[in-house]
Amino acid sequence: MSDPVQAEREQMLVDTVVRSFDGAPDDRLKQVMQTVTRHVHAAARELRLTETEWNTMIDFLTRTGQTCTDTRQEFILLSDVLGLSMQVIGMNNPPVADATEATVFGPFFVDGAPAIQQGGDMSFGAAGEPCWVRGTVRGTDGRPVVGARIEVWEADEDGLYDVQYDDDRTAARAHLFSDDNGAFRFWGLTPTPYPIPHDGPVGSMLAAVGRSPMRASHLHFMVTADGYRRLVTHIFVDGDEIGWKDAVFGVKESLIKQFVRREGVPTPDGRAVSTWSEVTFDIVLAPSP
Amino acid sequence: MSDPVQAEREQMLVDTVVRSFDGAPDDRLKQVMQTVTRHVHAAARELRLTETEWNTMIDFLTRTGQTCTDTRQEFILLSDVLGLSMQVIGMNNPPVADATEATVFGPFFVDGAPAIQQGGDMSFGAAGEPCWVRGTVRGTDGRPVVGARIEVWEADEDGLYDVQYDDDRTAARAHLFSDDNGAFRFWGLTPTPYPIPHDGPVGSMLAAVGRSPMRASHLHFMVTADGYRRLVTHIFVDGDEIGWKDAVFGVKESLIKQFVRREGVPTPDGRAVSTWSEVTFDIVLAPSP
Repeated sequence: MSDPVQAEREQMLVDTVVRSFDGAPDDRLKQVMQTVTRHVHAAARELRLTETEWNTMIDFLTRTGQTCTDTRQEFILLSDVLGLSMQVIGMNNPPVADATEATVFGPFFVDGAPAIQQGGDMSFGAAGEPCWVRGTVRGTDGRPVVGARIEVWEADEDGLYDVQYDDDRTAARAHLFSDDNGAFRFWGLTPTPYPIPHDGPVGSMLAAVGRSPMRASHLHFMVTADGYRRLVTHIFVDGDEIGWKDAVFGVKESLIKQFVRREGVPTPDGRAVSTWSEVTFDIVLAPSP
Repeated sequence: MSDPVQAEREQMLVDTVVRSFDGAPDDRLKQVMQTVTRHVHAAARELRLTETEWNTMIDFLTRTGQTCTDTRQEFILLSDVLGLSMQVIGMNNPPVADATEATVFGPFFVDGAPAIQQGGDMSFGAAGEPCWVRGTVRGTDGRPVVGARIEVWEADEDGLYDVQYDDDRTAARAHLFSDDNGAFRFWGLTPTPYPIPHDGPVGSMLAAVGRSPMRASHLHFMVTADGYRRLVTHIFVDGDEIGWKDAVFGVKESLIKQFVRREGVPTPDGRAVSTWSEVTFDIVLAPSP
């Protein structure tokens, strides 16, 4: 686009729209709307977006909204596959000393997951290979964090979270609290790779651009404790076939853990399973900002 | 944000996401996704978007999609009030000689509106003051365009389009064809200001930023003829109370017309109404691109 008169006309429109927000009583909302306006116009102008393409985008966004239900959030998926979710996580959880790094929250957390005791089983019957997960929660000062609330959730070996089934089951999610030494241990499932829900508009977009919908194998954690920054993260499986090609750009080196496969070896708590895995995840919480 | 290490980390994520589209088989789709990715991240980074704000945006977009129905398009409204619709129209319909300028299409066009004859009434009983609309359709070479298809649609005096009623009515929309001299004439309604549908997420956003949802009074036209660029436009009412404060930035100087009020004066076709208005709209079509 090299016609300066046309360029000026386009810029005047941007300026008019930006000014239309000048009277917003909330300064932050004004800033958000003006910044979004500038970038939406800049993208459309750089692309010389056609009317047909604009229509396609309107239709895509509409279908994305209409794909959302109580248990499916297609706009979060869109944010995830554009790396926006990771960007927001990264901006709001900058590294602090050796604190454990954050990664995407994802759309499958559910408030009010059942409590389990130390050593309990968070799978609640979900299919998969048992995995003994243990670690400690400490602050960046090295002191154990006692009574930290640890939420864990994951997909079953068929790649589905409980909420993706139609039968209202609650499985493969739970919470427990770190003990008097900051330690925790529980039975989960060895994580396996799975696709993000890809039968909707976001899945179609990924297919059209030749991107895989697969997520690297992972187990979700959310850890909260008074005086500490909330930690939302995953642990990933060393040697995983998806790994860095994770559809939502969630993998960080420090979060890749060795899941050690055990066959015919007794479990730490005497549970009678012949094939299981174990992993250690020591968590370091940053102080509250 | 002045920490260069953090800035580099953020930019690396943007670069990784942009590269994830490198394999897209369609070059244009690749370009669209990469450009959108860059601007989405740039906006989030400039704003230092918080996780709460990100959640609010996800929720806003979700509700915007879910407000859409067969007869309501909330994402088009969003595009309209951000001036994006006008920008796309302007980029794709740059001024050509003295061709009539384009403006927003809006969400209320319906395919298959009834045909009327020259001098017919497109209101089909919709409430409002009768308005005699006439003009000619010519090319930029000055020659009349015979048989141009002229679609017209507008809101009634209560500010509603037919599709906004629950009773499946068809009113205040029609099409006709220019005659052998390129001329057209029909009865419509004198346009009145009305709000865009503002009981949804877009209306809430406008209220939160202190912007009016009112559109300047207007009558929609879409004119198509073989060999000419499709024209989507409105005519606006000179002296209108909303005028340049139009919620969707659609007003252009050249599209403001004098609607002349007539009281106790005979109508051109002998129709028995005591109060009516008349307007002339001479249309100039650009050649096909």
